[in-house]
Amino acid sequence: MEHTLPHTISLLSRTPAALDALLRDLPEAWTLRNEGENSWSAFDVVGHLIHGERTDWIPRARIILQFGETKAFEAFDRWAQERESQGKSLGQLLDEFARLRSENLGELHALNLRQADLERRGRHPALGPVTLSQLLATWATHDLTHIHQISRIMAHQYREAVGPWNAYLGVLQCAGHSAP
Amino acid sequence: MEHTLPHTISLLSRTPAALDALLRDLPEAWTLRNEGENSWSAFDVVGHLIHGERTDWIPRARIILQFGETKAFEAFDRWAQERESQGKSLGQLLDEFARLRSENLGELHALNLRQADLERRGRHPALGPVTLSQLLATWATHDLTHIHQISRIMAHQYREAVGPWNAYLGVLQCAGHSAP
Repeated sequence: MEHTLPHTISLLSRTPAALDALLRDLPEAWTLRNEGENSWSAFDVVGHLIHGERTDWIPRARIILQFGETKAFEAFDRWAQERESQGKSLGQLLDEFARLRSENLGELHALNLRQADLERRGRHPALGPVTLSQLLATWATHDLTHIHQISRIMAHQYREAVGPWNAYLGVLQCAGHSAP
Repeated sequence: MEHTLPHTISLLSRTPAALDALLRDLPEAWTLRNEGENSWSAFDVVGHLIHGERTDWIPRARIILQFGETKAFEAFDRWAQERESQGKSLGQLLDEFARLRSENLGELHALNLRQADLERRGRHPALGPVTLSQLLATWATHDLTHIHQISRIMAHQYREAVGPWNAYLGVLQCAGHSAP
């Protein structure tokens, strides 16, 4: 389907509560384990989502609106959460994600974007020209990619426990397309 | 990690609220569209989870405890939701799933399972011998496989909208391992 701002906002506004319902107060055996070397735990993923709220989506939207294609976005640090999540609990990260997302949706609303704005182009440092519409659709789809990843990371912890049902569970066949 | 009953219950008890937070009152453009012919929408997946609560997990646990390997499980109808969800809203399905899951967790608690029970074997009509422990681990991992699937189905709707970011979004590379 075409990108529309109301559809994007409807998804973006639900992700923090969905992750909260899934992850808060789960045993750490589910939330702190990863899929092996250089992979992320659910805890790491929530930290990554927080870093995106701070440095990626709204800041990039502002760059497009202010500079168009004349200024490329800053590259995104995919490992920032290693520093930034240190010493925090998963509950604190979930609270922080919900607060930042809510603030950013407020900022998005305040931009009062029209169709002509959504068609404006910016410049991604690796991908080249992209539109504001594509950036906002990617914000929502990026949430989904990480819900997809979290379900896969957690399922991995029961890979042996399910025994022969392994063959029937799609999530256990997933090769981790978003792994670093 | 090893299967433990508390870890399994901690996940099973969260799935209804997580799906509720993600899906309730979302525009139907997200929840009623699928990934193409013979594939499921998020609405279909919730119907499938309901059918599992009615016919799969607790009924199979009872067969293991009562008959061991002498009686194979009934085969599971993967398309039952086509009939059973007809005329219902997604909100009604989410309510029904939450109610049935809560009842089934009550039944699971009432079974008062000990380690020796978890090691008991039953017979899957296609997979052969399986333990009660494996069945319960599969129940939880089956939730995760469908959260994984729902995130992929919804992301598919924005496949074009994200433009060149398509290449960076893992969920859009996922081949749909659990598709029929």
